[in-house]
Amino acid sequence: MNYNDVLKSARENLNGSCRVCPVCDGKACRGEVPGMGGKGTGSSFMENITALASYKLNMKVISDVKEPDTRITMFGKEMDIPVFAAPVSGTTLNMGGKFTEQEYISWVINGCHKAGIYPMVGDTAIDSFLITNLEELKKSSKNGIAIIKPWDNLNVIEKIKLSEKAGAFAVGMDIDAAGLITLSLHGKGVSPKTAEQISELKKSTKLPFILKGIMTVEDAVLACQAGVDAIVVSNHGGRVLDETPGTADVLPEIAEKLKGKLTILADGGVRSGVDILKMIALGADAVLIGRPFVTASFGGGEEGVSLYVNKLKADLKSAMVLTGCKCINDIDEKVIY
Amino acid sequence: MNYNDVLKSARENLNGSCRVCPVCDGKACRGEVPGMGGKGTGSSFMENITALASYKLNMKVISDVKEPDTRITMFGKEMDIPVFAAPVSGTTLNMGGKFTEQEYISWVINGCHKAGIYPMVGDTAIDSFLITNLEELKKSSKNGIAIIKPWDNLNVIEKIKLSEKAGAFAVGMDIDAAGLITLSLHGKGVSPKTAEQISELKKSTKLPFILKGIMTVEDAVLACQAGVDAIVVSNHGGRVLDETPGTADVLPEIAEKLKGKLTILADGGVRSGVDILKMIALGADAVLIGRPFVTASFGGGEEGVSLYVNKLKADLKSAMVLTGCKCINDIDEKVIY
Amino acid sequence: MNYNDVLKSARENLNGSCRVCPVCDGKACRGEVPGMGGKGTGSSFMENITALASYKLNMKVISDVKEPDTRITMFGKEMDIPVFAAPVSGTTLNMGGKFTEQEYISWVINGCHKAGIYPMVGDTAIDSFLITNLEELKKSSKNGIAIIKPWDNLNVIEKIKLSEKAGAFAVGMDIDAAGLITLSLHGKGVSPKTAEQISELKKSTKLPFILKGIMTVEDAVLACQAGVDAIVVSNHGGRVLDETPGTADVLPEIAEKLKGKLTILADGGVRSGVDILKMIALGADAVLIGRPFVTASFGGGEEGVSLYVNKLKADLKSAMVLTGCKCINDIDEKVIY
Amino acid sequence: MNYNDVLKSARENLNGSCRVCPVCDGKACRGEVPGMGGKGTGSSFMENITALASYKLNMKVISDVKEPDTRITMFGKEMDIPVFAAPVSGTTLNMGGKFTEQEYISWVINGCHKAGIYPMVGDTAIDSFLITNLEELKKSSKNGIAIIKPWDNLNVIEKIKLSEKAGAFAVGMDIDAAGLITLSLHGKGVSPKTAEQISELKKSTKLPFILKGIMTVEDAVLACQAGVDAIVVSNHGGRVLDETPGTADVLPEIAEKLKGKLTILADGGVRSGVDILKMIALGADAVLIGRPFVTASFGGGEEGVSLYVNKLKADLKSAMVLTGCKCINDIDEKVIY
Repeated sequence: MNYNDVLKSARENLNGSCRVCPVCDGKACRGEVPGMGGKGTGSSFMENITALASYKLNMKVISDVKEPDTRITMFGKEMDIPVFAAPVSGTTLNMGGKFTEQEYISWVINGCHKAGIYPMVGDTAIDSFLITNLEELKKSSKNGIAIIKPWDNLNVIEKIKLSEKAGAFAVGMDIDAAGLITLSLHGKGVSPKTAEQISELKKSTKLPFILKGIMTVEDAVLACQAGVDAIVVSNHGGRVLDETPGTADVLPEIAEKLKGKLTILADGGVRSGVDILKMIALGADAVLIGRPFVTASFGGGEEGVSLYVNKLKADLKSAMVLTGCKCINDIDEKVIY
Repeated sequence: MNYNDVLKSARENLNGSCRVCPVCDGKACRGEVPGMGGKGTGSSFMENITALASYKLNMKVISDVKEPDTRITMFGKEMDIPVFAAPVSGTTLNMGGKFTEQEYISWVINGCHKAGIYPMVGDTAIDSFLITNLEELKKSSKNGIAIIKPWDNLNVIEKIKLSEKAGAFAVGMDIDAAGLITLSLHGKGVSPKTAEQISELKKSTKLPFILKGIMTVEDAVLACQAGVDAIVVSNHGGRVLDETPGTADVLPEIAEKLKGKLTILADGGVRSGVDILKMIALGADAVLIGRPFVTASFGGGEEGVSLYVNKLKADLKSAMVLTGCKCINDIDEKVIY
Repeated sequence: MNYNDVLKSARENLNGSCRVCPVCDGKACRGEVPGMGGKGTGSSFMENITALASYKLNMKVISDVKEPDTRITMFGKEMDIPVFAAPVSGTTLNMGGKFTEQEYISWVINGCHKAGIYPMVGDTAIDSFLITNLEELKKSSKNGIAIIKPWDNLNVIEKIKLSEKAGAFAVGMDIDAAGLITLSLHGKGVSPKTAEQISELKKSTKLPFILKGIMTVEDAVLACQAGVDAIVVSNHGGRVLDETPGTADVLPEIAEKLKGKLTILADGGVRSGVDILKMIALGADAVLIGRPFVTASFGGGEEGVSLYVNKLKADLKSAMVLTGCKCINDIDEKVIY
Repeated sequence: MNYNDVLKSARENLNGSCRVCPVCDGKACRGEVPGMGGKGTGSSFMENITALASYKLNMKVISDVKEPDTRITMFGKEMDIPVFAAPVSGTTLNMGGKFTEQEYISWVINGCHKAGIYPMVGDTAIDSFLITNLEELKKSSKNGIAIIKPWDNLNVIEKIKLSEKAGAFAVGMDIDAAGLITLSLHGKGVSPKTAEQISELKKSTKLPFILKGIMTVEDAVLACQAGVDAIVVSNHGGRVLDETPGTADVLPEIAEKLKGKLTILADGGVRSGVDILKMIALGADAVLIGRPFVTASFGGGEEGVSLYVNKLKADLKSAMVLTGCKCINDIDEKVIY
């Protein structure tokens, strides 16, 4: 099995819910929520791609870089590359119905572990999905991170406890899901939260707490003040609010303000090792990747997932060689043209 | 009936006069006047879309916003959302001929009322169309606004009187219709007017008087000096002069100069709740929406219209939640990236 | 016969040498020289369109403009609109071979005269074409202008004399034809000229002398010093040098330097009355239009040509109404957004 | 045989590995490495085209330029135009398999010589390819330049010696091949080099030494300090690192810093005489052209290659006539708009 085979199978197995386009840029699937697309005109998804593509790289060929080290340590874990599989759930609703949530998440979890990285698992309107995801996490000694929707705090804290029991090494909340159509379809109550409410969640657990869905310096500063351990600069893949900037547009100013004060993660349009390198250069400590893990798992199961991660690893290493970076810490604004 | 059904029926009922494109952006119908397109190259229509799309939104998820209030009061009326159905007439000439002006306008009027907003009705070269529109307005206790073409003042004043008798709660003139091809096809005399002539019209009625078709600060200041109660920043959907800027390009400077001195309305490319939010943030007090009401009414009659308005309402509310706005007054330049 | 019929016939009669695209923008025919396209990548043709489209118009509806006067007087002649048919020759080589040079030019000459404007006729590698063109000019009492290629001066002066005898009321030279592929195909010698050589040509005749093909302030100043009566800001429709700016890009700085010191004409991408208005606002005294006269004449003969000119007239008048211009002299930079 | 015939045959002979698009811009073949495309999204290839196209030319028609001199002398050789065929190898891997490396390179070498320019020949993971290339160079008294991959220095020096023996009049290294996928497929070790290592290579030969793959001022200065005779501003046709700027974006600042201190060559998207003129105007002393030589040779063998070079010559001459340049030295920033 090679990566092209994976894409070919994915195209069949996703039943049209994702076309597995040559470039995954949000055009073909615009407006498809439920589905794999961006909300409304799809512009927030597309801006993620456009924003990242607007940064160009300084090639550097006169150097002594030969075998760059792509590893980092985060939340106490060593990772082969600074990448997490993003929490993506709602298999039956969004991904064509051929595979179950359990099949999908087990492939992502095991494929990530096999290739030396960790998965985040997600939460939906259907409570049993998080349970399934946590059960699958628990089966593996390596485990992962659970990201919970912004229900009322009591409900969230209950799910944080479930995550702790399942052995998750960090937990978080995708607070931007307050605008998620697929939740309102099920009549569940989600909403933004105040800094005080976020602080209460943070204090409810000894695990690192991650706040996902930050798109402004103002919210990033509030999150920092609320005591979270990490933020994810994210517009939820363009699925919650139409017409936001791309994440790579806002990441640099957020990083400039908060770099070193908390862990900064970012997602949105990351597809390749070059994209990972760019996000790190723009200020992220690590990235999350979403849709490509759906493609990889639907196309090749566990093996498809690890194949994709290894492809990222080789691509990132090659990009580090040609930009003169010996390790992840070397990657900074100097590599951006 | 859901909104996709409405679009599907509309595609059939409009007989090719509008293709009901996935994104209504003026490309497929460029030059189709008569028809639903923009004049000439269609660039003024397309610029409306491009201008609005060029503004991006600051997502704000750390807040205490849960159930935003989308209501406003304007011209003495409370509205569920700050939206009017724009005056669109000439059904038989422009919309494929399947439905009559009377059918079309009754659906728009009743659908709007049902969903908590008000319609504007329009005037054409065929005098009976305004009569029909006013008759339909009169049937409903909620009524609406009549917008009259820039005939000579005597003729306009006569039509203002007819509107008063029909119970309209405001009247106005789409002065930019001075350049409308479809009128000259009927040999009727329309023209720009001086500030004095506009002042005379304003003084002829006790109703609020709206001047529609303002695209420069200079004209906006003259309109204000002439005493009008409201202006509509509008290029007539791109149907009167090819190659104007988009309305969202010129709105901010007009609002900066005149905000608070008169009511500022705007139209041009507004399709969704996010677009409404943007126009308000750029300085409008409320917006007008045109072509989507044609699609909604031709596709689903009165029910199609109210379905569309309720879709806008949900979308606007969701956008307010994710930008941290509790009420319409909260929406300002801070939400623009 | 209406203008759409003309376009439909043109599409057939041009035998694929021009596709008569909905928007004539140089994309479909890129590289087709011989043919109707721009040279090489076609970018100089396309830039003409892009440059003009980049200017947007200030709509002005509060005014006392009702019936604008579109006439001007130039080279002692009154014209209904400030437009010349550009010199286009080489019918058999470039336009599909269905009609002769004589048929084509007689339609253009007579159609222009009928509609109140004047034609320029052109010169090619085949000497008899200019002879034919001059004979057709002579048949009409209204006559026109002859534009000669940059042969050696003796040859040019001879052709100026022929033009005088044929009754032309002005003569000129399209000096940028020094780069024309279709001439080198016939082994004829054309070249740039020094200011002294141009001065010699100017002095050889009592007729106004026009230099066509100016794209920089530097060349415009030299042309002025050489004593020419008029320049045409032109890149020869993109047919002589690939990758120039659009004419509307360079016109404003040329006009700023030389306005009033000589007559400034411009061509390049002018299709509509709005385009004429823009070119005048950018500093031209009148414009030349090329390819649309080929379409109009191949599609409708003399009637097609006058139909097109009358369409321009109505469109220009409408654009003047909506930008607040009472006469051509009123059109200035204030109409540009 | 004319150039259109060459393109037609090339389309067949390349077996789909190159579509021979009307404009060779990297879109159709994006990601095709092996193959003829750019790596990953193909953006580095496409940026080369976009960057060059972003510069427009000042047309100059009032001048005394009639027969421009397109010749230069470089590395002791007189060339008809300032163009080298770029080193392109890996025929069997990248070009559809119809012709052998030996056939291909002999056509390029002999076609270049016949038309008055010189070829560069390349090196791949398969050692015998360089041998073949050098044998073909040796057959011709005019010879050419050998460009070697960045193996360890001992290996490179050995290949430099082979090149000297074959009569190459200059040698070089495409150091950016450190990121070439097609090499890693064969498990060969390539890597960036330090300035000291480059200096050692330079000192190992009396031939001029060229370093190819410079994309920053920083690397250009290091190369200069290492004593190389020439650099090639190049991103390897977009085949080694995705998402670099175009070469024409970075050339001006590199030239500003180093012009006159060493020879500056550039490649990347050069297709026509106008492109050559632009690159010279932006600071290059001469250019390399890659993919079009593949098309020309696969389509017309030796004759195809010389036909293409003569086309460039005519096109460059015409562009020099219309920009007022009598010789290559006249071409400077004044021709750029």
